[in-house]
Amino acid sequence: MRFSELFAPTLREDPAESEISSHKLLLRAGMIRQVVSGVYTMLPLGLRAMRRIENIVREEMDASGAQEIRMPIILPSGPWKTTGRYDLYGETLFKLTDRHDREMVLGPTQEEVVTPMVAGDLPSYRDLPVNLYQIEWKYRDEFRPRYGLLRGREFLMKDAYSFDRDEAGMRESYRIMYEAYERIFARCRIDNVVVEADPGQIGGGVNHEFMARADVGEDLFVECENGDYLANKEAARARAPEPAGLGNAALTKVRTPDAASIEDLAAFLGVDASRTLKCVMFDVAGRTAAVLVPGDREVNVNKLEKLVFPEKVRPFDDPDFSARGFVKGYVGPTTFDETVTVFADHSIQGGNDWVAGANEDDHHFTGANEGRDFRVDRWEDLAEFREGDACPVCGGRLNLGRSIVVGHIYQLGTKYSAPLEATFQDEDGSPKTYEMGCYGIGISRILAAIVEQHNDESGLVWPKDIAPYQVVVLLANRDDEQVVDEAERIYRELTDLGVEVVIDDREVAAGVKFNDADLIGFPVQAVVGKRGVKAGTVDLKVRATGEKTQAPLIAATESIAVLLSGLS
Amino acid sequence: MRFSELFAPTLREDPAESEISSHKLLLRAGMIRQVVSGVYTMLPLGLRAMRRIENIVREEMDASGAQEIRMPIILPSGPWKTTGRYDLYGETLFKLTDRHDREMVLGPTQEEVVTPMVAGDLPSYRDLPVNLYQIEWKYRDEFRPRYGLLRGREFLMKDAYSFDRDEAGMRESYRIMYEAYERIFARCRIDNVVVEADPGQIGGGVNHEFMARADVGEDLFVECENGDYLANKEAARARAPEPAGLGNAALTKVRTPDAASIEDLAAFLGVDASRTLKCVMFDVAGRTAAVLVPGDREVNVNKLEKLVFPEKVRPFDDPDFSARGFVKGYVGPTTFDETVTVFADHSIQGGNDWVAGANEDDHHFTGANEGRDFRVDRWEDLAEFREGDACPVCGGRLNLGRSIVVGHIYQLGTKYSAPLEATFQDEDGSPKTYEMGCYGIGISRILAAIVEQHNDESGLVWPKDIAPYQVVVLLANRDDEQVVDEAERIYRELTDLGVEVVIDDREVAAGVKFNDADLIGFPVQAVVGKRGVKAGTVDLKVRATGEKTQAPLIAATESIAVLLSGLS
Repeated sequence: MRFSELFAPTLREDPAESEISSHKLLLRAGMIRQVVSGVYTMLPLGLRAMRRIENIVREEMDASGAQEIRMPIILPSGPWKTTGRYDLYGETLFKLTDRHDREMVLGPTQEEVVTPMVAGDLPSYRDLPVNLYQIEWKYRDEFRPRYGLLRGREFLMKDAYSFDRDEAGMRESYRIMYEAYERIFARCRIDNVVVEADPGQIGGGVNHEFMARADVGEDLFVECENGDYLANKEAARARAPEPAGLGNAALTKVRTPDAASIEDLAAFLGVDASRTLKCVMFDVAGRTAAVLVPGDREVNVNKLEKLVFPEKVRPFDDPDFSARGFVKGYVGPTTFDETVTVFADHSIQGGNDWVAGANEDDHHFTGANEGRDFRVDRWEDLAEFREGDACPVCGGRLNLGRSIVVGHIYQLGTKYSAPLEATFQDEDGSPKTYEMGCYGIGISRILAAIVEQHNDESGLVWPKDIAPYQVVVLLANRDDEQVVDEAERIYRELTDLGVEVVIDDREVAAGVKFNDADLIGFPVQAVVGKRGVKAGTVDLKVRATGEKTQAPLIAATESIAVLLSGLS
Repeated sequence: MRFSELFAPTLREDPAESEISSHKLLLRAGMIRQVVSGVYTMLPLGLRAMRRIENIVREEMDASGAQEIRMPIILPSGPWKTTGRYDLYGETLFKLTDRHDREMVLGPTQEEVVTPMVAGDLPSYRDLPVNLYQIEWKYRDEFRPRYGLLRGREFLMKDAYSFDRDEAGMRESYRIMYEAYERIFARCRIDNVVVEADPGQIGGGVNHEFMARADVGEDLFVECENGDYLANKEAARARAPEPAGLGNAALTKVRTPDAASIEDLAAFLGVDASRTLKCVMFDVAGRTAAVLVPGDREVNVNKLEKLVFPEKVRPFDDPDFSARGFVKGYVGPTTFDETVTVFADHSIQGGNDWVAGANEDDHHFTGANEGRDFRVDRWEDLAEFREGDACPVCGGRLNLGRSIVVGHIYQLGTKYSAPLEATFQDEDGSPKTYEMGCYGIGISRILAAIVEQHNDESGLVWPKDIAPYQVVVLLANRDDEQVVDEAERIYRELTDLGVEVVIDDREVAAGVKFNDADLIGFPVQAVVGKRGVKAGTVDLKVRATGEKTQAPLIAATESIAVLLSGLS
């Protein structure tokens, strides 16, 4: 491809709207353009890079036995109401009404399409297992789209759906996908971690997120300093601290004026916040629930919600306290009767002589101990993770990392097949509900994640297998016939070798060409200039390392091919 | 690919909803499934065939110097209002409102996206020409979607947009695309005609339709028996008949009671309808227009609309006649004053002693002749085409043909760039509006058109380059170990040769396999059965011709490869 003809409008300045490297660089290198908030046009260079990722995904999916199909983007809303996701997605789901007043949605994922189809067309246990995937644009009306391709409203996704006879089969299909994902991210040169995760709006049981490490990532994960534990922050479980081994003090009511907050209480009594008992009150479907965590920790409401699902959780409003006989700021478990369900984080376990609310204005108890002085109905993992918590495996320090989720796989079980009444005939003739898995990869998001991990102050640094073109032949002096001839020859020879190459033949200053070559991130730059041609040499530069070498002009093509083959 | 694992659910019966071959066969062969009216899922075999078409289109577009980009499907509605297409498409345009109450549309084509982008990024004459294309799903809310992939609401289209400095450049870009289209349809084995056409909702000037001949096609074209004229029916121009050479009769008012229709008038006077003058009245933006055609012809209102565009044309309602002083059923041009604009079809020219309305109840004139008795303001081509009309080139008979429009190219000029204020800086520094062309190909529609042209009573008959797989190895006896071994060997060897092959290893009767092989339309079938293996042979069948041969078992792979290489 000739740069003079290539539609790659590079920008000298950072666009004002970009906040992170991938967004900024993809705009500057002329690879994407915004059409409207969260919606982008892919320009030739950006599209080529995205296609390479797409092809890696396709190859690995095909190699794992999955079959490609293509499902529509506009879908009838009915099945979405049946599965409950119409309400669950809420405003995030794009909706439209067709000319015959039928409501449709734009697919954010496609369980509601693939499940009835498989039930109609693969009705026998003999047809299973099957894993169907597609690579297609998906739609989510994000409240605040941002970060370019990272959080868009239109994004390219590979979504796969496995259908099995039983749970063992589903787990095997899941394992195959897990391994395919590991290969995909390795080939895309993404430095990633795999964590157990929260199933979110997809639902189901076991699931894993594939997270690309990135400082700008919005997705937090927890990692043990010793490398033996990884989890999504929401799903992270820390090892409970050893009980303090106290528990001998008598339960004593003390006056604690104006100490309704943990901070004020700890200061007034001169104790550490970790010695006080935080007691947070919730309404759970009309009933009262209390959650106990140490005073220096927060309650992970998300985990509580999952524990009581499908019942709804609502933190107490001010009126709830008085209406149910509690004193806000001074609630404690020692006075609870049977109408309160008491949840406690594991860290509360064991005698600790807690400071707890007395359920009376300006009063607390000291020396409160579980068992003797108050009751716990359910021990659960309910404290929010905090950096520095202990690894549940080895007790080592847990650190927080930031990442971009690039893949998410789920063991769905019958979560969709049951409400959609998708059954097959089993060997004994009885109808049985498919055991499903679903497997997503964000293709356009991987593109952004690769850029986040592979860039420097001069621009993009593409891995060889993702780069839109592998080589740029930089024609430094357009007015010198011999230079032009040599550059054209090298361009032609590389093309004949099957190398994807751009010749920068534009009528612009050589400096502009050097800057653009770095910005666009061709893995290898071959500079053909007057001085070199006279000396019989060509200057080669490896973008990733900055390493510069000279090759004999006569063997330029071969030198470039050798250089390329050594790159990753 | 093993058929036992392939998701290709063939059907024994014709699906009730299918009316035409392509729809019926794509459903029966397990290649597509309907999700909702006019919206389909592509199954693995259908998707593979569609991808082959897509790749042919991509190769020819790239070879012609066009560059691939990818534009969004959800688009802000603003630019659509600016160009007027928001209203022009009307209910055919899918609309939706996002969570921030901004209206968006689903793209039916993408002039409104690409034009502002090019204006922003290619602001200089030095950047031109450029031709940008994409292959993406498009959306039109058809009132009555039908015929499977032929008239869907979601369809895959290649759309290209050229930008030039001037009209000469635009015509050159257009020529390049025209020739690329010829290559594309030839490679897709589509028997097609190219005709001048009506620009429709895209607008602009010169345009051509590429029409695949098909008896079920809804698009009519006109073809001279001598092969020297072709046109879309709407755009067809017939040679005007020779003037009758009359014109000597005196203008005479005659009583014609109850003869307000041409039919009654001709019967009453005992003359042929072609001797009477049909005078159809229109309101054109508040003014009065009359259109004259021979009594046995119809007015082509579409052509009239184009003549007076952008003014609006409305046929007279009953009240218009009396309000403007005309007598319905008896209107004729001899009494018109200057307030009536008189359009006449070329066939009216020359003395013909017409029978014309006298603008008086129950009265006509005979012997009315243009020039002497009435005035014509504009001679135009305004009669509807009729089969048997004379070819404008040679005078031969014009016949009507039916087709499926698979491609449409347009010289747009500044139709979009002007309202969108898309300008570049020309060599002299002045701003100039881009001269544009646009070029569409219906990829999913080509798939259906190929099936319409390539099928028989047993099923699909794919051209080799479009077939989802080129060869099926039909394992006729699964219980014979030697047969299985030989079939597997041939399957493996073909795969190693790079042939795309399916081995039918399903646990079903051989008859089912034979039927499915014909239905799916593999170009070559290789049957490996007990008798053949004993005799050291394999049975080969060419699907297109039905020709059967035997090859030595030991050289089966080579024989299949040779057979394939001879197919088109």
